Order: sequence, then C-alpha cells, then structure tokens
Amino acid sequence: MEHPENDPKYSGLMVNKGISRPPSVNPYMKKPLRSSTLSVTEYVDGILSGDRVILSRAVTLVESSRPEHQDMAQAIIEKCLPYAGNSIRVGITGVPGAGKSTSIDAFGIHLLKNGHKLAVLAIDPSSERSKGSILGDKTRMEKLSREHDAFIRPSPSAGSLGGVARKTRESIILCEAAGFDYLFVETVGVGQSETAVHSMVDFFLLIQLAGTGDELQGIKRGIMEMADGIVINKADGDNIDKAKMAQRQLKNALHLYPVPESGWIPEVLTYSGFYDIGIDEVWDMVHRYVDFVKLNGYFDRKRKEQAKFWMFESINEQLRNGFYRDPEIAKLLSDLEKEVLCDRKSSFVAAKEALDRYYQRKK
Amino acid sequence: MEHPENDPKYSGLMVNKGISRPPSVNPYMKKPLRSSTLSVTEYVDGILSGDRVILSRAVTLVESSRPEHQDMAQAIIEKCLPYAGNSIRVGITGVPGAGKSTSIDAFGIHLLKNGHKLAVLAIDPSSERSKGSILGDKTRMEKLSREHDAFIRPSPSAGSLGGVARKTRESIILCEAAGFDYLFVETVGVGQSETAVHSMVDFFLLIQLAGTGDELQGIKRGIMEMADGIVINKADGDNIDKAKMAQRQLKNALHLYPVPESGWIPEVLTYSGFYDIGIDEVWDMVHRYVDFVKLNGYFDRKRKEQAKFWMFESINEQLRNGFYRDPEIAKLLSDLEKEVLCDRKSSFVAAKEALDRYYQRKK
Repeated sequence: MEHPENDPKYSGLMVNKGISRPPSVNPYMKKPLRSSTLSVTEYVDGILSGDRVILSRAVTLVESSRPEHQDMAQAIIEKCLPYAGNSIRVGITGVPGAGKSTSIDAFGIHLLKNGHKLAVLAIDPSSERSKGSILGDKTRMEKLSREHDAFIRPSPSAGSLGGVARKTRESIILCEAAGFDYLFVETVGVGQSETAVHSMVDFFLLIQLAGTGDELQGIKRGIMEMADGIVINKADGDNIDKAKMAQRQLKNALHLYPVPESGWIPEVLTYSGFYDIGIDEVWDMVHRYVDFVKLNGYFDRKRKEQAKFWMFESINEQLRNGFYRDPEIAKLLSDLEKEVLCDRKSSFVAAKEALDRYYQRKK
Repeated sequence: MEHPENDPKYSGLMVNKGISRPPSVNPYMKKPLRSSTLSVTEYVDGILSGDRVILSRAVTLVESSRPEHQDMAQAIIEKCLPYAGNSIRVGITGVPGAGKSTSIDAFGIHLLKNGHKLAVLAIDPSSERSKGSILGDKTRMEKLSREHDAFIRPSPSAGSLGGVARKTRESIILCEAAGFDYLFVETVGVGQSETAVHSMVDFFLLIQLAGTGDELQGIKRGIMEMADGIVINKADGDNIDKAKMAQRQLKNALHLYPVPESGWIPEVLTYSGFYDIGIDEVWDMVHRYVDFVKLNGYFDRKRKEQAKFWMFESINEQLRNGFYRDPEIAKLLSDLEKEVLCDRKSSFVAAKEALDRYYQRKK
C-alpha cells in the first residue's frame, strides 16, 4: 500500500519521523485528526529537516483559503525562502491519453535511482473539492507513490488559475526547502495552464503521441513553441515506426522557428513510459539543457524574469478582481456588453463608463 | 504626385470635395491651416458622404491626445457606429524585408480594379511623433497612394500598444462609415502588435520569405498559429524553387495543428508582389475564407468576441495604468522588485504590499 506520508488524508497526523514527538493517533485511520497545532518555527524546522508529514501539512496550509491558515503559511514561506531554489523544475504537459502518469512514474523512478529526491505537483484549475483532480492521482503513479523520496500532491483548488498558480509556486518553495532537488509540475492543458506552468519551471517538457495516420495528435497552438523538449511516448512494438515519423515531422516543424532566447534548440525524442525505453535519453537531454543554460546565464535570468512576472501577474489579478467582483460593476458590465454586441456603443466608450462608475464608488 | 487627401499634412485643409464650402487655403502649402472648426454633424455628414478630407481630419481627431479633440472624436464615432461594420478587415504582418509595402500596393490595386474601396491603417507602437512610422509610408506604396479610392494612414502614436490599438479600431469605424469596404491593418511585429491586429481583423495574413538555405526566415513563435493564410513573397525568377519548398514546409507544419475554431484550414500560397504574380489567387483565398466563415456563423461570432475583448482589454489597461503610473507606487515597486530578485521576498508578498499601499492611498 502507498506510503502514508504521501497521502494528504494523513496530513493532519503526526507520524514519528525523526523529531521527538509521540505519535498521538493511529496513522492508518482514514479521517485526519489534528494533533496539537505547530508553531511557525516547528513547521520550518520540520520542513528543513525533511519531515514529510510536516511538509505535507504546510502545503495544506498554503492551499487553504482560511485567513488564519494563510497568515501562517506566509510566515512559513518567508522563513523557507532563503533555503529554496536548489532544484531543477520541470513542467510536464500532454493531452489526455498521452500517458502522462505512467511517464511521470517512469521518469520519477529513474531520478530516484540516480540519487535524487522528487516532488510532483500539479496545476489543474478545473479541479474542485468535490471532484478532486485527475492529476497527481497517485493510484496512477504506482511505483512512485510507494517511494519515500517522492512527494506527490494533487492540484490545489483555488477558484482561478492565478490562485492555483500562486499556491503551486509557494509549495515549490517549501518542497525545495525540504530538500527535494527535482520538481515536476504537471498539467493537462486546460485553458492557460500550460502558460502558467511554463512561467514557473526551468524546463518545459511536452509529451506527445504519434497519431493514427501520419498526423500528430492534438498539439495545442502555442504549446509546441513553449517546449524545451518534446518526447513522443509509446514508441514500442508496432508503434515504433509511427513514433519515428512523428519525431521527424516535429523536428521539421521546430526547425522553422528561430533559436529561442535560451540558445537551446528544442529536441524531439521517442520513448516508452510503460516499457521503460529511452528514459535515460530523456533525462540526459534535460541535464544537458540545464548545464547549457547555467553556463550561458539564461537559467538565472529566466528565474529572475519569472519572479518578476509573478509579482506583476499577482498585482494585475488583484486589480482585476477588485473591479470585476464588485456586484454593481458586474451588473453594469452585463448591460454594457449587450450594447457593445449590438453596435450601440463602442467597446471603449463602454469601458470608460464602467471605469467611471467604479472610481466614483471608490470615493 | 500623391493625392493631397492622402497626405496627413493636409488634413487640416478644406479641399472642395462635394460640400459647399469655399477653399480657404492653398492646398499645396505644407503647413496645415485649420479653417473654421467643423461641428460633429458636419464631420459625420462629410464622412458618410465619403469626403476624404473630412475623414482624414476626423481620424486626426481620433489620434489626438487633447481632451477637447477626444470628446469630439467620441461624439463622431458614436454617430458613425451604426454605419460601420460593412467591410472585410485584413491584418497583414511580416518581417522587415518581406516586401510588405510592395505587396500591399499590389494587393490594393487588385482590389481597386475589382471595384472595391480600400483603407490602409497601421499599428506600430514604436512610432513616435518625431520619427514617424515606417509603416503606412506612402512613398513605398507608389501606385496605391495615387488612387482616389485608397485611403492610407500611418500608425498613430499613443504611448502604448493599447492606445494605438484603440485609435486604430476607432479609425476603422470611421473608414467603414465612409464607405471603404476593404480595410488593411498592417504591422511589423513589434512586441504584441500582431496579437492586437489579430484581435481586430477578420482575416490574418502572414507574409513570409523563403530563406537562404532550406529554412524559412524568422517566423516569430506564436504568429504562424494566428494566420488564416500564409503567403510567400518573391516567388519569381531564380527564387521560385525556394519559395515552393518553403510552401511545402509550412504546409507540413500547419498540418500538425488541429483545425482552428473557424473551421478553416489555413492555406499557404506563393506570389510575387513586385512582379504581380499570384495576386488573384491570394484574394481568391481571402474571399473563399469570408464566404466560408459567414456561412458557418464564425464571422459574426468572431466580431462579437473581438468587441467584448476590446472592452475588457480597455478596462484592464486603465486599471493597470491607475496603479502603475502612481509615482509612489512606482517607487515602491522598484524597491520590491529588488527584494524579489534577491529572494528576500516572495513575488506574492511583494505584490500584496504594493496593493495594500495602493488601496490605503485610495481611501
């Protein structure tokens, strides 16, 4: 059965892990029982010592929408920030059916065998508390979920992509402080989630499938151009020829673009997640990329750009929320939209009216 | 010499064109002299009757940043709005050197020969009053600038892409009310200008060049996927084979993507703007596209989406301006940015601090 620390149901429990605290509950009970509340210092000490359960509880605090939890989470993050940053962050996306979970399982085991510690996070803005997320579904990452050096969390729910992205980014800080030196952030490509993931990782990996004919399956516009590496899955058995043809097509397509800012020309590989073929080559590519961009300075430059990006993105989202969530403004906008769509008012006049009303109310 | 109405230098003059007003100045003087100010009604009547000089003056009002001009411009636009919409709006982009001006010249003459009236606008956010814009440079559209049924304007200057986009969109309304049934909006691809153009046209045309080897020249990431048609210029003389090869490569690359929302599979053609080869085929493609999307409802749907987009875009830009242009906030942000880049503060904490200060000052 899966390791209890990986199960968020147990995040409220205290399993004795190297800190002098008696276990106060049966760790195999399904309902989480909160033991005595931890202080910020206890959280931070636990995270820095690699305590998986404390890390899990801290991530739960980050994901919570309750103000007292958020205050505590921010305090913990602030203290962990100096210890963050020492990992390789890999974004992983692919259409449903591309075999993401199986692949992450295989990728993860490979990294663990090579002495790394891996955290797997997910961004899925469509996940709601009642449904849960299909990503980070540990039943589908069979091998990884049993490993102590792997930490897997499903996507947080947050009501907006911005909220989910923020919580994921904050969780990254905690995981890095806890000693995880590889981070996956996976997404299924709902809306703008790939863009969000791309803005928080060092390497963006696109998992593709060869198609039925000589076509590739469903590459979303704009995603291919984001990828630092494209890996074509299910290159096994009868499917090998199709996978190789898809590889050629993609290489040709990528060839049309200028060299990206990183200076790295994206590579296209084939592999099989299920049969464990070509996994070494995929990670050799990632390592070569990291060496390359650390050498030419792009690695640090990109991280700085991302930090700035999220500051401004956060500001802009709050500015919009302040406006669009105002009930009177929402009603006015609904009316204005109708007039715009009937050509009775120009878009800009409508916008001005809405803003004038908003700023009037602010006085 | 070029037709005076097409020259914005003369936009302040009254050249007698079908309305009972005596010419009060020498139309060939270089300095614009403002004759008696027109009323809103006179502007609107002039535009609706197709008066090119009045249209030109009205567009100048739209482009002006002076509040009294803007008030008048808005009144004129409001009255012209019911008469707008009856044109095909074509966005045209391509790297410098792709032969955009020569191509627009050839495209334009073709349309005029087929009984249409064409307005050519431009979006170039880098244009400043002192330098002027290289787009809409009528000296480079030799034939078109001499035609009465063509109306050519350089890009407005506006200090921001949002401002330029707004003024262009408002000018579109005026041009359509004046009876132009084809509109070009050209751009050189500075920053996000292609996205702005794509958001205000019906058909997005990308002009490409075949490369020196078997590569295509500089397709910006993200632009290829926006195009409804890609046309490869300079398919003449020795260059024909390269152009044909580039055509094949692009067709293969486009083939990788799913069918766009329009239902129209983007086409790739070759032509020569300079030698007037393949121009008919380019416009046959545009007409087939328009017939297709008018039939399946996408044409109207897209226009409605664009109108909504610009309302929200305008609101969002104003919200941002209200915040970022505040001098105290700007100073604070500069400090916060430094702390974020040194990992002393998380992006989100920094954002919150800035917003808290902003809302405090608003009270």
